Amino acid sequence: MTKMRLLPFQEIKEAGEFIEPFIRRTPREASPQLAQSSEAEHFLKLENLQLTGSFKLRGALFALHKIVGAGGRTVITSSAGNHGWALAWAARQFDVGARIVVPSSADEAKCSGMKALGAEVITSPSPGYDEAEKTAREMARKQGIPFVSPYDDDPVMAGNGGTLADEIIAQLPDVDNILFPVGGGGMGAGIASYVRRTRPELKLVACQHRDSPALALSLEKGEAVTELPPVETIAGGIEGGIGVNTFAILKDTVDRLILVTEEELKASIIWLIRNHQYLVEAAGAATLAACLFHPERVPPGKSVLVLSGRNISLKTVASVISGF
Amino acid sequence: MTKMRLLPFQEIKEAGEFIEPFIRRTPREASPQLAQSSEAEHFLKLENLQLTGSFKLRGALFALHKIVGAGGRTVITSSAGNHGWALAWAARQFDVGARIVVPSSADEAKCSGMKALGAEVITSPSPGYDEAEKTAREMARKQGIPFVSPYDDDPVMAGNGGTLADEIIAQLPDVDNILFPVGGGGMGAGIASYVRRTRPELKLVACQHRDSPALALSLEKGEAVTELPPVETIAGGIEGGIGVNTFAILKDTVDRLILVTEEELKASIIWLIRNHQYLVEAAGAATLAACLFHPERVPPGKSVLVLSGRNISLKTVASVISGF
Repeated sequence: MTKMRLLPFQEIKEAGEFIEPFIRRTPREASPQLAQSSEAEHFLKLENLQLTGSFKLRGALFALHKIVGAGGRTVITSSAGNHGWALAWAARQFDVGARIVVPSSADEAKCSGMKALGAEVITSPSPGYDEAEKTAREMARKQGIPFVSPYDDDPVMAGNGGTLADEIIAQLPDVDNILFPVGGGGMGAGIASYVRRTRPELKLVACQHRDSPALALSLEKGEAVTELPPVETIAGGIEGGIGVNTFAILKDTVDRLILVTEEELKASIIWLIRNHQYLVEAAGAATLAACLFHPERVPPGKSVLVLSGRNISLKTVASVISGF
Repeated sequence: MTKMRLLPFQEIKEAGEFIEPFIRRTPREASPQLAQSSEAEHFLKLENLQLTGSFKLRGALFALHKIVGAGGRTVITSSAGNHGWALAWAARQFDVGARIVVPSSADEAKCSGMKALGAEVITSPSPGYDEAEKTAREMARKQGIPFVSPYDDDPVMAGNGGTLADEIIAQLPDVDNILFPVGGGGMGAGIASYVRRTRPELKLVACQHRDSPALALSLEKGEAVTELPPVETIAGGIEGGIGVNTFAILKDTVDRLILVTEEELKASIIWLIRNHQYLVEAAGAATLAACLFHPERVPPGKSVLVLSGRNISLKTVASVISGF
């Protein structure tokens, strides 16, 4: 067996110290309503209350800090959602130029928001994310400007997941399990790096969309499935391929994988409004869906569920509610 | 002119120090989307993210602390909503018995929640709040147990409003205006007491429901209108009469009063979902409605709007959204 790949501990500590004055230390909230047996205790890590509406601000801030430290004054990225919003916000803080390539399907409100923060928004000709990333990488190469990957980049992983794991353990030192959503895998790779270095016995539970299970497919295949055909879902954040670098970390560190359906995600959004009165986007509800609909797959003990973001449109809220 | 009545500064400082380890220090969030002129800047005080879902936890904790200090082991209160929930939560923390008289119209989910926290819930025969309070006061007298008013009590005012004003000013030292909702008036009286003693030039803007404007009527009449006929509204928290003690403070301290309509409250709930992705209850949206629909009544400069709570039922969310 080859040595497990993990991010350097020092990089995660550096990320945490750097981003601390900029972000919210989001609360941990008990959810006794969620426990389906007396052996389980559940806590929500309310990263849906983070500034810019998602955990993505953590990695965007740290990645940009590194680039500015190396002399960069402009960056390019690709995103239809949370990462783009977070990067635009971080770029404004540091007075850095941000060019964000969005798929043609991107939400108009999100694009206006990024523009209002001063970012330059470039619309890709295709509705899919993968094309937008190709365009952005090509622009970055031609213009000699750094490209910031939404997930497959060490500072992004350290910021997005490493600093989050540090907070989770500080807020609940005797946590047994951490449940997190997996899209590109950046958050998970950061969490795993921190946890395997500090609390190796802690169980890591990855939650994915059943119709876009890149991690499950990659584990079967033994290599990263970086592209997947687009699926019809309201959970954009957990759709699509996984990163080569994130998979290199996740493949040896994830203890369990739970796949959830579109209907389970919708029901979990409703459950959260009913029981805690918070809005969460569908990708951000994946860990809830895992506990509500697949409790037998969750290891016993104290679980922390990462609710990763709240950037849901009124239209989506309305359509989800009208289905119940 | 008689001397302005205010709560003692020492009581507010004591309340703040006491409750600090129990509550969330809720964030302040900029809302550039809300400004309708370049002379205005708006910030939301997100007390909707408070534990138990509202600011009421602040006063409940401090009032209970005072009672326990005086030897009390059981308390009685009356509430259909946030205060009852908060008191049940605080009582559990201090291992004190809580008896909560609820109107017969009270939401079943809220009653179950209070019971789950260990409170004894007594249903009043009438659907109105005033009757529930009379029953509770009568029980308290007969049983020789302290009654905790939801608003008309010094420790409740100091906790609910005083500690909130202290946080608001610490988070934005050059704030020019504070906008707050007024129901019974406890939050406003606490805010006014702190502000008039520390930042007398700061403008205080009270926001009320147009169909239940107890403060406006009391100011006209020159005495507290403590009871008002019930009105059909989703904003239970700002409906009904004002307190004798809260009015004694508010009458000389409020700079401006803005009345908002039921439709404006509903539109403000929607606006908040669209622009900040938070859920807020109707009473908690009164300050937003004032800025969105009556901007000419808001003094210029930097305004902080208290969003007081998020305890809205899924049914109400659904009905509000379906109207838009």
